[in-house]
Amino acid sequence: MTGFLEKLQNRFSTLGGSLCIGLDPDLEKLPQGFSRDAHGVEKFLEAIVDSTQDFAAAYKPNLAFFEGLGSQGLQVFETLRARIPETIPVILDAKRGDIDSSSRHYAKALFERWQADAVTVSPYMGWDSLEPFLAYAEKCVFILGLTSNPGRHDVQLLKLADGRYVFQSVMQTFRAKPCQAQRGWVIGATLGDLTQAAFDATGDDPVLVPGVGAQGGDLQTVFSGARGKRPEHIVINAGRTILYAAHGSDFAEQARAAAEKQLREICTALTNTQTKTRPVQH
Amino acid sequence: MTGFLEKLQNRFSTLGGSLCIGLDPDLEKLPQGFSRDAHGVEKFLEAIVDSTQDFAAAYKPNLAFFEGLGSQGLQVFETLRARIPETIPVILDAKRGDIDSSSRHYAKALFERWQADAVTVSPYMGWDSLEPFLAYAEKCVFILGLTSNPGRHDVQLLKLADGRYVFQSVMQTFRAKPCQAQRGWVIGATLGDLTQAAFDATGDDPVLVPGVGAQGGDLQTVFSGARGKRPEHIVINAGRTILYAAHGSDFAEQARAAAEKQLREICTALTNTQTKTRPVQH
Repeated sequence: MTGFLEKLQNRFSTLGGSLCIGLDPDLEKLPQGFSRDAHGVEKFLEAIVDSTQDFAAAYKPNLAFFEGLGSQGLQVFETLRARIPETIPVILDAKRGDIDSSSRHYAKALFERWQADAVTVSPYMGWDSLEPFLAYAEKCVFILGLTSNPGRHDVQLLKLADGRYVFQSVMQTFRAKPCQAQRGWVIGATLGDLTQAAFDATGDDPVLVPGVGAQGGDLQTVFSGARGKRPEHIVINAGRTILYAAHGSDFAEQARAAAEKQLREICTALTNTQTKTRPVQH
Repeated sequence: MTGFLEKLQNRFSTLGGSLCIGLDPDLEKLPQGFSRDAHGVEKFLEAIVDSTQDFAAAYKPNLAFFEGLGSQGLQVFETLRARIPETIPVILDAKRGDIDSSSRHYAKALFERWQADAVTVSPYMGWDSLEPFLAYAEKCVFILGLTSNPGRHDVQLLKLADGRYVFQSVMQTFRAKPCQAQRGWVIGATLGDLTQAAFDATGDDPVLVPGVGAQGGDLQTVFSGARGKRPEHIVINAGRTILYAAHGSDFAEQARAAAEKQLREICTALTNTQTKTRPVQH
């Protein structure tokens, strides 16, 4: 079995950038001609995966959108999972976070039943809540680091007595612990002044960056913040701008074009900061 | 449609205590005679619900254990959901926490597809991440407050610059916000010196208390900490001690007996602190 990092590196070697395509199937946004149900979602996502895979360094299905369709939606996910080529790593966006045997069962679901190469998890319940995920060698566990949404101020950006932000303390604590899996971090794309601090806290770990999409301007900021890190480890997620690039019968071609464009923008932004990054390993 | 609080109050009036029975179907722990697969889990949980419902003020299925069986496990959950009497509220233990349309789809899954009366969520991504859940009137959203596991020190018990713990700041911030749903909190059963501080932070909101189970001694501490609150709002969860009370053919009778015993212990502990609580509303 090839591990997440190796798959990602292979894809980066081919593509020159780590574009992750988010699979968030929203019934209300399906192109014309698809039934607004689990069957329609299945057909739509098949077409999206078939048309975009040449430009995908990874796919990120978001379980929320599949669960929204009930157990049928999870069946759709299982069918979709089997359709994604083995060479392209799957980051299963789950943001799970529980303890003990609950956490073990979530890890089993995501890594064993659903064959995720990587997952996203939430650190609120602390280190022992993530250990069952981090026990899987070859897999990658992206822990929420600092997110872009307004609510980041409610927990992640609280100021501690020692002067650090909560997110910095969490990341430092967790990075000091040994684990079998590859540890990674979710860092938002629109953090402004905090971009550098957030990337500094990730060390050499891979970083999943959601929220780029339409706001292409942020790519430059992201790669500047990530300067000095392995460029293949900076995984840029784009979802809706690709999935819903068009609503007519040309939706798949348009998705392919949008994926290619997004990948090119990533490569350009990478090149622009390249002089100060390590050389790309081809 | 009867809301969560009304259902809970009705059950409390009948039973005298708010015992919540956790449904955590673990293949390795199924009694003899059940197949170690989704079908076995379905038959086992049917028997458990049928045998324990006279003593259940609520049921708390934990999605982790159903997801561990893949989409088939979610089908089992859907069948189970339909079997739980309409009068007994279902708290769906999900600990979800995402943002924006992801959160809306999770809320739709839990409240609409799966007809939960209440759910558990994680506050790490902040207030806006929980708003889609809290938009459902009649439902209850139990937010992780302070948990009993060792990892509570990694985030929840970090000390802020203003002298409060992170969990206190989170709870205070969120309790100040308006919402349609009933807000509730998850507070661990074995918090020692912090029990009082944790219950103080919940105000009049309902509290879900996991982790009692085998450690019956903690009930007294819990109800002392919750003194002055509406007794029906203190929802005590017990899972494994009831589900896996016996492994032979008498498992269902033994589960029923364990549920009755647990309810009696809750009633006793309530009575012992009764003189200092508000009178029970019958």
